[in-house]
Amino acid sequence: MAFSEFRPLDEKTLIEYIKSVPAISSKLGNKFDDLSVKEVGDGNLNFVYIIVNSAGSIVIKQALPYIRCIGESWPMTKERAYFESLALKEEGRLCPEHVPEVYHFDRTMSLIGMRYVEPPHIILRKGLIAGVVYPLLAEHMADFMAKTLFFTSLLFRSTTEHKRDVGEFCGNVELCRLTEQVVFSDPYKVSEYNRWNSPYLDHDAEAVRKDNLLKLEVAELKSKFCERAQALIHGDLHTGSVMVTPKSTQVIDPEFAFYGPMGFDIGAFLGNLILAFFSQDGHANQENDRKAYKEWILKTIEDTWNLFYHKFTALWDENRNGSGEAYLPAIYDNPEVQLLVQKKYMRDLFHDSLGFGAAKMIRRIVGVAHVEDFESIADVGKRATCERRALDLAKMLLKERRKFEGITEIVSAIRQY
Amino acid sequence: MAFSEFRPLDEKTLIEYIKSVPAISSKLGNKFDDLSVKEVGDGNLNFVYIIVNSAGSIVIKQALPYIRCIGESWPMTKERAYFESLALKEEGRLCPEHVPEVYHFDRTMSLIGMRYVEPPHIILRKGLIAGVVYPLLAEHMADFMAKTLFFTSLLFRSTTEHKRDVGEFCGNVELCRLTEQVVFSDPYKVSEYNRWNSPYLDHDAEAVRKDNLLKLEVAELKSKFCERAQALIHGDLHTGSVMVTPKSTQVIDPEFAFYGPMGFDIGAFLGNLILAFFSQDGHANQENDRKAYKEWILKTIEDTWNLFYHKFTALWDENRNGSGEAYLPAIYDNPEVQLLVQKKYMRDLFHDSLGFGAAKMIRRIVGVAHVEDFESIADVGKRATCERRALDLAKMLLKERRKFEGITEIVSAIRQY
Repeated sequence: MAFSEFRPLDEKTLIEYIKSVPAISSKLGNKFDDLSVKEVGDGNLNFVYIIVNSAGSIVIKQALPYIRCIGESWPMTKERAYFESLALKEEGRLCPEHVPEVYHFDRTMSLIGMRYVEPPHIILRKGLIAGVVYPLLAEHMADFMAKTLFFTSLLFRSTTEHKRDVGEFCGNVELCRLTEQVVFSDPYKVSEYNRWNSPYLDHDAEAVRKDNLLKLEVAELKSKFCERAQALIHGDLHTGSVMVTPKSTQVIDPEFAFYGPMGFDIGAFLGNLILAFFSQDGHANQENDRKAYKEWILKTIEDTWNLFYHKFTALWDENRNGSGEAYLPAIYDNPEVQLLVQKKYMRDLFHDSLGFGAAKMIRRIVGVAHVEDFESIADVGKRATCERRALDLAKMLLKERRKFEGITEIVSAIRQY
Repeated sequence: MAFSEFRPLDEKTLIEYIKSVPAISSKLGNKFDDLSVKEVGDGNLNFVYIIVNSAGSIVIKQALPYIRCIGESWPMTKERAYFESLALKEEGRLCPEHVPEVYHFDRTMSLIGMRYVEPPHIILRKGLIAGVVYPLLAEHMADFMAKTLFFTSLLFRSTTEHKRDVGEFCGNVELCRLTEQVVFSDPYKVSEYNRWNSPYLDHDAEAVRKDNLLKLEVAELKSKFCERAQALIHGDLHTGSVMVTPKSTQVIDPEFAFYGPMGFDIGAFLGNLILAFFSQDGHANQENDRKAYKEWILKTIEDTWNLFYHKFTALWDENRNGSGEAYLPAIYDNPEVQLLVQKKYMRDLFHDSLGFGAAKMIRRIVGVAHVEDFESIADVGKRATCERRALDLAKMLLKERRKFEGITEIVSAIRQY
């Protein structure tokens, strides 16, 4: 069987495919008599197969030319697999501890063969719903974000490298468009795709669509998203794109990757932690009031930013005399000016992260794609209370983000809602 | 003679070349016995030939793989001619009244054949030095900037078109690097290329290199220049890139074009008008004290911004329901929010323009490339006084630009220096 043209795989043709590609069949010891195949594409977009046998394991991810969770009525280029493979390889090079290895990429088939992030790894979002503590999560995510964002920015790269890669990732425009629509547009207008916890949040959803100041702020963020090529960002760094055990953190699914504003990644992660926080009351019961867990989430929010700040500025300091073209050492030649520019850079990045994080929270409550954190709360009234608190905080953050000086103030604000 | 490989033309091979290309030889009526050829590349980078005969005229511009005014020691890709031709065609399509027509482009030869902007057109900078009034200049330049910037921004374009063109112009990276170096870096550090009116401005040049707040601000502008793909900008829109008569205004030489911040173009033009203003005292004599002319320059500065504001926002209003993806009409659906976003957009653009304009002024006084406005003042002491006033204003504008609300305040500030 040849795979010289694109075709969607099924569990049968998948095996034929694996047999035809040494780079992946070797990971299974070239043994095909005891294969176990499971389709686990519980994300929104793609088909994902886990293939395991006694000799090893692999994951095969194939992009089809539409959005899986919507269906063929919402076409979406399968070229996204190419950009996902590029991003996985780059992120893996920069931060191998937290990114699964790519074994094989087939552009014709829009197919990635990669390391299986094996159990007991689970999707972080599910762990947060279950109330599991991940003591290394903040450290690991700060590490991933600091390394992938710093090393692909002009703090480290030359303009030549930067523009070359910016140009390449301009090709991932369809995925950028999808984000623009579902994050920055649909929640602020009437859209057939929007949904919310109705009738409880009917008024809240309408208030979002009528809030001129919110629209003013989201326009600025959308423009940054579309225009500012600050670093190679993951583009979808919510808690569903992270697999965890208490000891390990693996970041997956960067098909939305492109050169965009760093704050979009940091905000996605922090915003989804805040959503997890507000969902906890909906998961509390007599055995577990979730109070201690909520404190752990708040601590993780605080630690993630603080550790990110520390790691990112440490990379900056270490590479001050490197090839990065943004702050030439001959200009930024004294400790005062170095501190001045670094503080300004990090302050702007903090405000960007708050803005993008807030936008990501809002869209998960009144836009097309919701989060299991809230959706899994059986009591819809209780769920609405949780959602409304998150939404109100997010609206305030989007409008007032420039007034916040540090993450501690954000944690205080979260406690007040 | 074949031109299948790149070769620098001389006046003899130029004629052979023209004969071999119908698209340009036809502009000369295919007559080659009465040709007059003049090399006029008085710019910094390229060779430019004017070819005239009784039947017509053309300009041939060829890029060589180095910077002409420095020599072969500063290599520079001749691919810049490709981006110049792309930009000329796009600007010409959007604003044909103010951009010369491209007849022919040869990528192998890095050669553009285009309309000769005939006498009495002269380079605007020379007109400003001579004290010539151009009553339509502000109107024409506002028109050029409003059309080229608006129609290549996300206010008019779809994300798909935008990212496609951003990606293409990422190829013009060498010219972007040159700007980064000479505008945003060299003036703020010790560089072999820097020069200034020594010894008069020795202290002033050193003060620029020791001003931490100035360095903080120029870093923000450099980052915008490198990262923000807001519109197709000319990239070098000073008064030497504009040819004028009292009735006509033609914008030439967009080889630095790429998708960058709009304020870089607006600032380049306004900043060079301000330099022209401060140079006038050096050109005053008993016959002409230049007082009225200085008032005309100030009025032109004010009119340019005000007319740009008016034209740009009028294009925005006219195209509000078009394909532009930045402000979808279903979201920005009431006059209040429309006014709110427009005012914010224009205010940010004003501040960007002031910042970039100031940076362009500074680099013309203490960087590698100076302006004839000052250089042609014979009395070097008098010249230093003019330059220092311009430099002091520029430093103030770069640091304090966010405090200015409108162009009238800028004109008042100019009068005070």
